[in-house]
Amino acid sequence: MRFTKMHGIGNDYIYINCMESTPDRLPELAIEMSDRHFGVGGDGIVLICPSEVADFKMRMFNNDGSEARMCGNASRCIARYVHDHGLTDRKRISLETLSGIKVLSLNMSGDGEVESVTVDMGEPEFRPELIPVHTESGRMVEEVVKTSQGEIKVTAVSMGNPHGVIFVDRIEDVDFDVLGPELESHAIWPDRANIEFLEVISRSEARMRVWERGTGETLACGTGACASAVAAALTGRCDRKVTIHLRGGDLAVEWGEDGHVMMTGGATEVFDGIYYRQH
Amino acid sequence: MRFTKMHGIGNDYIYINCMESTPDRLPELAIEMSDRHFGVGGDGIVLICPSEVADFKMRMFNNDGSEARMCGNASRCIARYVHDHGLTDRKRISLETLSGIKVLSLNMSGDGEVESVTVDMGEPEFRPELIPVHTESGRMVEEVVKTSQGEIKVTAVSMGNPHGVIFVDRIEDVDFDVLGPELESHAIWPDRANIEFLEVISRSEARMRVWERGTGETLACGTGACASAVAAALTGRCDRKVTIHLRGGDLAVEWGEDGHVMMTGGATEVFDGIYYRQH
Repeated sequence: MRFTKMHGIGNDYIYINCMESTPDRLPELAIEMSDRHFGVGGDGIVLICPSEVADFKMRMFNNDGSEARMCGNASRCIARYVHDHGLTDRKRISLETLSGIKVLSLNMSGDGEVESVTVDMGEPEFRPELIPVHTESGRMVEEVVKTSQGEIKVTAVSMGNPHGVIFVDRIEDVDFDVLGPELESHAIWPDRANIEFLEVISRSEARMRVWERGTGETLACGTGACASAVAAALTGRCDRKVTIHLRGGDLAVEWGEDGHVMMTGGATEVFDGIYYRQH
Repeated sequence: MRFTKMHGIGNDYIYINCMESTPDRLPELAIEMSDRHFGVGGDGIVLICPSEVADFKMRMFNNDGSEARMCGNASRCIARYVHDHGLTDRKRISLETLSGIKVLSLNMSGDGEVESVTVDMGEPEFRPELIPVHTESGRMVEEVVKTSQGEIKVTAVSMGNPHGVIFVDRIEDVDFDVLGPELESHAIWPDRANIEFLEVISRSEARMRVWERGTGETLACGTGACASAVAAALTGRCDRKVTIHLRGGDLAVEWGEDGHVMMTGGATEVFDGIYYRQH
C-alpha cells in the first residue's frame, strides 16, 4: 500500500490517497501503521477522499484506532499533498471534515513551491457552558484556580475543543509534568481540557508548551496555539497577529476582525513509502 | 534516497543499500532519519556495504549519531535483506562488523521464505576483569548486591557488553523503573551494565525484561537474551536451549557444547521508502 509520511511542525501522520479506493478495516490499519517500532510510525493515519460537498474529504484515525474529527496541522499537510501530487491546481481548497468544511489557502514561494498553508480555524468560543468550564462569570479570563503549586490564573477558550491558557514569566520555570496533568483534570473542566503555558515575548511573539488532553505533552497543537493567541489578545498582552513558537516549530496566528482565527504554518513531506500490511 | 525499514522483534532500524555508493555525513543522516516525528523513525541506520574479508560489511549509527559496534537483531535483518533483495543466494552469510566477523544462517520455510535467522553470538565471558565487574570471586554467580529495594542476587556475564541477570519469581512484581537505573549504575560495574530480569517458566522457557545501559527499557536486547539464557543454564534453572519471551517477541537461544551461543529470531521488512534528505 502506497503512503506518504508528512508532518506539520512535528505533528506527524501517514497520508493515504483514497481518491480511487479505500483500504478496509481502518481502525486496525491505523493502530498497525502508527506503531513506531513495528509499523510506519506516526500520530495516526489520514485518508484523502473524494467529497460531494467540498474539493476533498479528510478522514483521520488516531494511533489507538479511534476516528478523529479534525486537526489543523494535518489539514495543512492535506492541502500541500493534493497540490504536490497534482490532485488539484487550486490554491484555495475546501476540505470536508467531521467538524464541518474547512478552507485552506496555499502560500506559494517565488519558485512555485508551497511555502506554508493557512487554515481558517473558525471563531473562538468563550461561553462557559459551550467550552465547557465551570465558572460564575460570563467568561473565564485569568480566573484564579487552586493547584498543588499554588494559585494559577486560567483563561478558558474553546477552538472546537476546550483549552486553558496560563501566562507565565518564563516557560522554563513551569513544573510542567506536575501542573499539566493536574490542570488537565482540574474540577473546573467537566470534560478535562488541553492546557497551554504561554510566555509572551513581545506584542507579536510568544513561546508555548502544550499538555494535550488524554495524550500529555506534544510537540505541537494547532488549536492550542490559536486559543493562546486569542487569550493573549483578549488580555491585551499581544496584538491580534502573533507568532507562536512551539517545541515542533512556529505557527502564525491571526484573529481577524471578522472573528475568524487564521493559522499559518509549514507542511513537510518526509518520505514516500510502500507498506506491507501485516494483519 | 531509497531505504527499507525492518525490525527484529521490535528493534527497528533503517536499512540502506550501500553496495554501490554510501551517503555522506553519516552521523547527521542517522540523527535526522531516526527522528520519530520529523524523520523516518528508528533506533538508528544500518548500512549494507561491500567487504574485503566477508560476504558483506555492516555499519550502524545510533539515533544520537554515534557509531555502534554490532547488534544481533540488526544482523538478522541484514541477512534477510541481502537474501530478499537478491544480493546473494547463500543461506550462510558472513558479516564484517566492528566486533569481528559474524556468521548468520537463514532458516527457510517450505515455500522458500526466510522464516528466521540464526546468529552465532560467540562465547560468553565470565572473567570479572573482562566483563568488567567488581567481585572477590572468580565468577559473579548470584552474588548478593545491596539496593534501595533490599538485597538482590546478580549474575554477571559479558556477551561483548556487560550484563547483570537477576532471577525473579514474577516479572510483574519487579519495581523495574527503580531497580533498572539503580542496578545499571551500581558501584559493582566500572562501566555500568545492561540489566535483565528473568522469570523462568520451565526448563526451556523464560520471560525477560531488559534495562539497556544508556537507553532504559527496550522492547528487545539480543545480547541480553543470550546472557540470560547462559545465566539460567549456569545456575541449573534451564537447559542449554531456551526460548526467551521479550516484550518485542521471542528469541530462541542455544548455548552449544562448543561454548558458542546461537540466537535465532525473526527479521521483518515493514516498508520500503524514498526519503527526502532535509539537511
